[in-house]
Parts: sequence; C-alpha cells; structure tokens
Amino acid sequence: MPDKIPDDSVGLVTPQTIQVTEPLSLISGQQLDSYTVIYETYGELNANRDNAVLICHALSGDHHAAGYHSMEDRKPGWWDSCIGPGKPIDTNKFFVVCVNNLGGCGGTTGPTSPMPGTDTLYGPDFPLVTVKDWVASQAQVSSLLGIEQWLAVIGGSLGGMQALQWAIDFPEKLKHAIVIASAPRLSAQNIAFNEVARQAILSDPEFHEGRYYEHDTIPSRGLRLARMLGHITYLSDEAMHKKFGRELRSGQLKYSFDVEFQVESYLRYQGESFIGRFDANTYLLMTKALDYFDPAGDYEGHLDKALQRALCKFFVVSFSSDWRFAPERSEEIVHALVKARRPVDYVAVDAHQGHDAFLLNIPYYIQAFHAYMDKVAGDIA
Amino acid sequence: MPDKIPDDSVGLVTPQTIQVTEPLSLISGQQLDSYTVIYETYGELNANRDNAVLICHALSGDHHAAGYHSMEDRKPGWWDSCIGPGKPIDTNKFFVVCVNNLGGCGGTTGPTSPMPGTDTLYGPDFPLVTVKDWVASQAQVSSLLGIEQWLAVIGGSLGGMQALQWAIDFPEKLKHAIVIASAPRLSAQNIAFNEVARQAILSDPEFHEGRYYEHDTIPSRGLRLARMLGHITYLSDEAMHKKFGRELRSGQLKYSFDVEFQVESYLRYQGESFIGRFDANTYLLMTKALDYFDPAGDYEGHLDKALQRALCKFFVVSFSSDWRFAPERSEEIVHALVKARRPVDYVAVDAHQGHDAFLLNIPYYIQAFHAYMDKVAGDIA
Repeated sequence: MPDKIPDDSVGLVTPQTIQVTEPLSLISGQQLDSYTVIYETYGELNANRDNAVLICHALSGDHHAAGYHSMEDRKPGWWDSCIGPGKPIDTNKFFVVCVNNLGGCGGTTGPTSPMPGTDTLYGPDFPLVTVKDWVASQAQVSSLLGIEQWLAVIGGSLGGMQALQWAIDFPEKLKHAIVIASAPRLSAQNIAFNEVARQAILSDPEFHEGRYYEHDTIPSRGLRLARMLGHITYLSDEAMHKKFGRELRSGQLKYSFDVEFQVESYLRYQGESFIGRFDANTYLLMTKALDYFDPAGDYEGHLDKALQRALCKFFVVSFSSDWRFAPERSEEIVHALVKARRPVDYVAVDAHQGHDAFLLNIPYYIQAFHAYMDKVAGDIA
Repeated sequence: MPDKIPDDSVGLVTPQTIQVTEPLSLISGQQLDSYTVIYETYGELNANRDNAVLICHALSGDHHAAGYHSMEDRKPGWWDSCIGPGKPIDTNKFFVVCVNNLGGCGGTTGPTSPMPGTDTLYGPDFPLVTVKDWVASQAQVSSLLGIEQWLAVIGGSLGGMQALQWAIDFPEKLKHAIVIASAPRLSAQNIAFNEVARQAILSDPEFHEGRYYEHDTIPSRGLRLARMLGHITYLSDEAMHKKFGRELRSGQLKYSFDVEFQVESYLRYQGESFIGRFDANTYLLMTKALDYFDPAGDYEGHLDKALQRALCKFFVVSFSSDWRFAPERSEEIVHALVKARRPVDYVAVDAHQGHDAFLLNIPYYIQAFHAYMDKVAGDIA
C-alpha cells in the first residue's frame, strides 16, 4: 500500500469494459461473434482526438499498466515506471489506453469467461489467438473508442510484437510504433522454453485437459513451474548474481531439499504468488501467441518486405543483458527497417537487469524514451 | 546397433563391481558403512601401474563411457568420441577407469539400492552427497584397484568439478587434472535452473516423497520436464537454430497444443527416453551435488588458495557457445591456477554446439585434447 499516492502517479484508476459485437475472424480459422474487453485509460483525450497512445501488454501483463486500484494496493500497475505525469509516457500530454488482450484472464473474454449463451466457461475451447488477432481486436476497440489513429502504439516484449504488427497490418492507423526489448520472431530456444512451460501445465494431473474449473481445482504445480522458469529468462545471469549470488537462506547448508540458496527462495515465491493471480489456460495461449508471431512469414521470410507496408516512424530499444530477446533481435528489426527505408531511432541500453530491464527505472532508458516521446508529442496538432 | 564395431572403438565391454567395506564419512555428517561401485575399464594397466586415468561422469552419465555392451546396442558409451584406440584418451596407451558415482542409478549404491540388511530401497533416505564425497569414494576405489596415483583424472561439466576437487583433496594421487566445460562453482542462474528441475520432480504427485518405488510408480512427468529443461541448457541458441530453426513438424501450423515446431518434438523425445533409463531420486541428488560444489568455499572464497594445495598439472578446455558453463567460468579456474602458480594449459574452443560440445567430435577440440594426452603419456615411466 502506498502511504500516499506519489505525485508522478496517475493515481487511483478504475478499469472500464467495452463490448465488441462485430465478429472477429481469427487466423486459426475460428471466429468470435462478440467479446468483452477490459481496459484502463490515463490522461485526457484532446478535442482533436489525436493524442491517444495504445499500450500493449506482454505475457503475464494486463490492462492495469499504471496507478492504483485502491489505497490498499501494495504495488502500482506493471508499467508505472514509464506512465504518469512527467514520465516518458506523460499523462499530461497523452491519452493512454491499455487493454487486456483477447484470451487474457484480467476481464477480457478468454478461457475463464462463459461461452456465449451458456454457463460453461470456455476453458480449452477458447480459440488460440495470434498477435495479428490481438491487433485486429485492438483495432475494433479503437473504432468503438472513436480513435481513428493512434499517435503511438507502444509495447515491451510480446507488447512490442503487437506494436510491430500494428505498423504492418494497419499502416494508416498509427503515427509511431515503439518496440522495446522485443524480437521479430521467436528463436528455437525461445520456443523450447515455452514448450517446457506448457508441458509443465499440460502434464499437471490437475489440468484435466483444461477443464480444471469444472473440477474445482487449478493446475497449480504446472503454473508454478512455468512461472519459475519464466523468471529465470527475465533476469540476466549477472542480475541474478548481483541479487542473490550464492547467498544461503539460513546462513548454512542443510543438505536437504529445503531452500538452501536465496535464489531458490525467490523463485518459489514468484511461482507461488503467480498461481493466485493468473489462469493456466491463458498462460498456455499467450505462449502460443509468442511462438506463432512471425510477421516476415507472410513475406517469404523477408521482414523488410513486411515493413515496407508501414507508414509510421519507429523507435526500437534493446538492453545489453537481455538474453530472452537479445539486442541482436532488436537489431534485426532495425536492419529490416533501414532496408525498407522506414524511419527508425534505435537505442541500445547498457543494463545488467536482463529482459526485465524494460520495466525498470534505468536512467539512460528513461531519458531516451522520454526524449522520443517528446518528439511524439510534437506530432499532436 | 553397430553393423560392425568400428576399429577405433574399445569394442564390447563388461561392467565390473567392487565392494567398499571401509566406512565413508560424508560432508553432510552422515556415514556409509559400505557400498558397491560399478565401473568399466578400457585398455591395460601396465606393470608399473602408472598409466591409469580416471574418467569422472556428469549429471546423467554413468560408468559406461566407451564401447558397447552388446552387438544390439544402438549407441556406444557417452564419451566414445574421446576414448578408444587412437582417440585422445588412447586405450593403446592408457588404462582407463570410469566409475558410476555414489548415489547413481547405474549399479553403484544409491537411492535405488536396498538399505543394508533390509529389503527396502534407500529412496529419499540415501544421504545427499557432494563432489568431495565422490572424490573420497573414488579414492577408496583407487586403493582397492591398487592404483596409487592416477596419471590423470579427467572430466567434463560436473566431471570436471571432480577432477578439480581431486587436485585439491588428494594432491599426491594424480599427475594431471583435466577440466572440460566446467566451472569452479554454480552461478545463481545455474542453481535456479536446477531448482526448477527439482521442483518439477518434487511436486509430481507420483513422487510420493521419494518413496515412489513402494507405490510401484515413478514421477515421470517431473523427470521428463527436468530433462527437457536440461536439454535447453546443453545446447546453445545457435545450435538450436542450426538444428531446428522454426521448422514445423508437419509443414503447417495446427493452432493446437500438439507438436508444431521440430524443436518441441526433439524436447519431448529427449524427455520421454530419459524416464526409462534414469532415477528421479538420483537426478535430485546430482543437481544438489552441483549446487554444493564450491572448492573455494573452504578458503574464504579464494579459489587460488584452494588450488595452492595442488601438485598436478592442469588442462582446462572451454567452448565459446557454452552458456551453462561459459568460457569465463573456465577462465576463473585458469586465473586462479596462474595466481596459485600452478601449471595450466588452456584451450578455448570456438564451437557453436553449446555445453554438449564436450561430448562431440569437434576437430580443434579433439586435436588439442589429443596433443595434451600425448604429453600426459610422456609421464608414463
């Protein structure tokens, strides 16, 4: 709980929902006839409706990107470091929208929602969605919100993939795409980590082929393992070394399977706290959306050809110690943009924090992000 | 099955066992009154008994390092690339011994062995052992085999840690320590991966607190996940890319949780084949031995002080794309040896195969290893 809401916070926020009744055809061939989207907004939409920026969330994120839901909240939204008055995504200038993606478990229609016209939850019958599907659904929401064009679409990690896909699929509908700590497609190693996480959930006896809600249980063991594994890939070796080293939990070795090292304690805590707040079917679906993302795939593997469709300006950011999506992966995007003769600014941040760096208050990152967003603000009429 | 045993193979081999009846005091404070060790030998012990080399195995290895057990064997022993006539560990020159470590599941006393005087298997009551304990037990075996001094103690990965510990704990008993793709201690990230693997096994409902033998089952889900995860860390990102890329199993996406990408298929196969041949309690114990290994720990964190005890010569090898135990980790050993003024040769092999490289036929590696072993052979009287 914040004793007092900080001055640079967006303060107390309340999520809103919107109903999309226009059908959405999915890449898998399935269709959603209607769905609900939960979202938050920060700042004010101006009279010209040209100061709106869309924030896209990553694997375990949701619509709650900044501020607090109540004075009892222990922590603010997931990107509070970057969104707020005076912060890079300055709510004094921008109208900020963040939606929970389709298939999520934060309030948007997904596996934990009832199937239309029934009391049964979707569960494993919720269709697998892709980044393209998310972007299409976000475009439907944009229309309903009366936003013709986003000043910027912004995201980190899987969120950055959505920003990239926006630029390709809806070139007229955004002025800037901001792609942070991301990649143009997953590597075999990335897919491999996702597959282990999925197998942990799928093989949990409490998974019940995804119908665990009906069995009044959750595949907590599997979800816990998936999250522990995820956390290893979010931190760099160096960050883990600085944070934990080989420090012992109780000062001496016990020669048992209890926690011996602090890093074990950290991982167990991260796993445990996740199972109370996230849905296993959603986790599975999010990892598949990551695996499937490959905008170059529609252009015979040529990312530059995909990006030739784009009309916006790009800002790409990477972090030196990020080994989930290493700087080289960001540079693939930059190279493709240069080859496609699209305007791109690129900032390679030297940071030891690994993939998680994009969520943290790292001076050069914040400063450079702020500078680019000032340039973005210059495009407000 | 080999159609014909290759000329550079040690051929058909038969494991032997030896009974150690001298008690062994373990680092944990527990004691083993007696135990059995299974081992293999290749080549001939010479009359001076000064051509014996000890091979130490890694996490999932055993005593079967080279050759075939029968003409039906699909694959030779795990280090057949390096052991045999004309190979770096040349069985025309050396008498090669490889033991299955204490706590193993290949025939040496471990969790799958009966507790002395009972019909009950040790299971989780088998004490946790450390690299120091293994080296002490290998020293007991050496005496029983009548080998006063090893010409070389050789190992890769966890095996290399044993070679390093030999040099510190029994300085008079070896002439060369050969430490390949290893590290002087695990990093927090290394421990974190081990912890996820352990939690996969420990949380499997079929684990039954390690007494799964009594329930006529095995924690196959957990062991499968542990192995899948292990495999990701054995390969480099580049090796996975070269091997699998984003290649699809069936040529097109299915939008389901079936195998989509080849890399998923590979991991599932690796996990599946492991559960038939390895014991979960042994896997747990091996990961703990890795975590606990820290020879500098007894010398206020100064590896060079620990290594000042050594009297042997050292050969250290690293592989450029190994991120489990990166070249920097080998170089910590090299630096400590230089600081301790101990003789060391160091070869940094440029290889894309990751940690697994130490098991593979990589020309520069094999050539440099061969060259060093020729030098070792020069120390035979």
